[in-house]
Amino acid sequence: MRLIRFGRVGDEKPGVMDSHGSRLDLSAHFEDWNRAFFGSSDVKRLGGILQRDASSLPTVPKTERWAAPVARPGKVICIGLNYSDHAAESGMPIPAEPIVFLKASNTVVGPCDDLQIPRGSEKTDWEVELGVVIGQQARYIASVDAAQSHIAGYCLSHDVSERAFQLERGGQWTKGKSCDTFNPLGPWLATPDEIENPNALNMKLWVNGDLRQKGTTAKMVFNPAFLVHYLSQFMTLEPGDLISTGTPPGVGLGMKPPQYLKVGDTVELEIDHLGRQKQRCISS
Amino acid sequence: MRLIRFGRVGDEKPGVMDSHGSRLDLSAHFEDWNRAFFGSSDVKRLGGILQRDASSLPTVPKTERWAAPVARPGKVICIGLNYSDHAAESGMPIPAEPIVFLKASNTVVGPCDDLQIPRGSEKTDWEVELGVVIGQQARYIASVDAAQSHIAGYCLSHDVSERAFQLERGGQWTKGKSCDTFNPLGPWLATPDEIENPNALNMKLWVNGDLRQKGTTAKMVFNPAFLVHYLSQFMTLEPGDLISTGTPPGVGLGMKPPQYLKVGDTVELEIDHLGRQKQRCISS
Repeated sequence: MRLIRFGRVGDEKPGVMDSHGSRLDLSAHFEDWNRAFFGSSDVKRLGGILQRDASSLPTVPKTERWAAPVARPGKVICIGLNYSDHAAESGMPIPAEPIVFLKASNTVVGPCDDLQIPRGSEKTDWEVELGVVIGQQARYIASVDAAQSHIAGYCLSHDVSERAFQLERGGQWTKGKSCDTFNPLGPWLATPDEIENPNALNMKLWVNGDLRQKGTTAKMVFNPAFLVHYLSQFMTLEPGDLISTGTPPGVGLGMKPPQYLKVGDTVELEIDHLGRQKQRCISS
Repeated sequence: MRLIRFGRVGDEKPGVMDSHGSRLDLSAHFEDWNRAFFGSSDVKRLGGILQRDASSLPTVPKTERWAAPVARPGKVICIGLNYSDHAAESGMPIPAEPIVFLKASNTVVGPCDDLQIPRGSEKTDWEVELGVVIGQQARYIASVDAAQSHIAGYCLSHDVSERAFQLERGGQWTKGKSCDTFNPLGPWLATPDEIENPNALNMKLWVNGDLRQKGTTAKMVFNPAFLVHYLSQFMTLEPGDLISTGTPPGVGLGMKPPQYLKVGDTVELEIDHLGRQKQRCISS
């Protein structure tokens, strides 16, 4: 299944995208794709409805906004320096353990919403990432194999970053990661049955039509199942939580000289089977 | 007003504590002390109810658990190294700007709930802190003075930290800050009219009856109004968000030799006008 949400900001509704690319409205059957949904048998109930009654579901008008495919996560966990080729490019050693930080979850917006360049920003940067959404609650999972069943699905996640706020303003990375609109998500959440191998997905990002990032999840140091297992040893992962699993080479910070986003720029990104995003940069 | 919540985990109800120390049940009038409450005129409505009808409100039985005084925050923002005497004790320079990090908000528990020592932990440490809860949404606040009106109130916040997870496992501090039960909060949220000067509050913490931390918010490098103003330049603060504003001298990491919490220990902490917490350390 490909879960989507649609509608105006603050009034999003749940739906799915069918195999023809049409969006179907499921708001008569479910409140939202939120913690309560992912933590219950509702996922199976959704599957049943789609098998029996898909043809009777209302179609979402094409003009409706694409929202983030899941309701605001309880937490957004990000993994730093998780691609071996990106680490090599940066002249950094491959981390012995995952580098973990949190991003404020009110940064999550729709995949084609405007991207706000923060006031005073001169170093707003892009990062295409594979997003992993938690299904069943995860706490001290016994093995990496067992972690797989705690994954609700995969999606395209843009971990936008302000490098001066992140690296030049003292202390931790939070300030450069949590600005408004800094986490475009979607267009859809693909359930695991849709993704044959999450560890072999091509990913690309363009700025104003120029290819900037090109990578594959095959170069991940720590793959999604490993990360879910690992994180569950430190904190309880709840249904609907989002993990952004790190970015491949080609961010603006790594260019010589560095290049950053400015008002008027357009960013496009995509991952195999997970769709495409497009953001226009505006002032905030 | 002193806002409290009570009841079993997952079924907490809103109330207040009156001037005699009795807890009054307001669940017939309000859903919860959550984002919707703090972001609306409900705070005024609560004041009206207490003025007119306080004597008709049901009393909460003494046996009912004290819950965190606010519903799970959208985000928990913490400030590092924010006490000049703690910085001096640590041999660290006073930060030029606030050091900011996030703590997973599912760490928030009641003020006297058991504190779970994480599996594999050998360095679970204490930090008494002044908590600030956001009232009106805050985004690019124009001045420090204007920030005051965005504060819903103050509370006692225990920013429990696992130092090995925080400092010895690579990268950012998140892993040592986000373990289950790592943010006991309360017993109450005092609205600003209750606190004559948030910048002159004594704070203390004991482990097994021995005084470990003793400080005053007068030694804060960046005070609550400054922090709300500052943070709002980087991210939107929403009603019900929590800011833990840093800890005074006396944490276990700073002792010679360092000392940490173990199963069976008892931690007690208090801040003037904000009540007292007591946690028993258990295995997780």
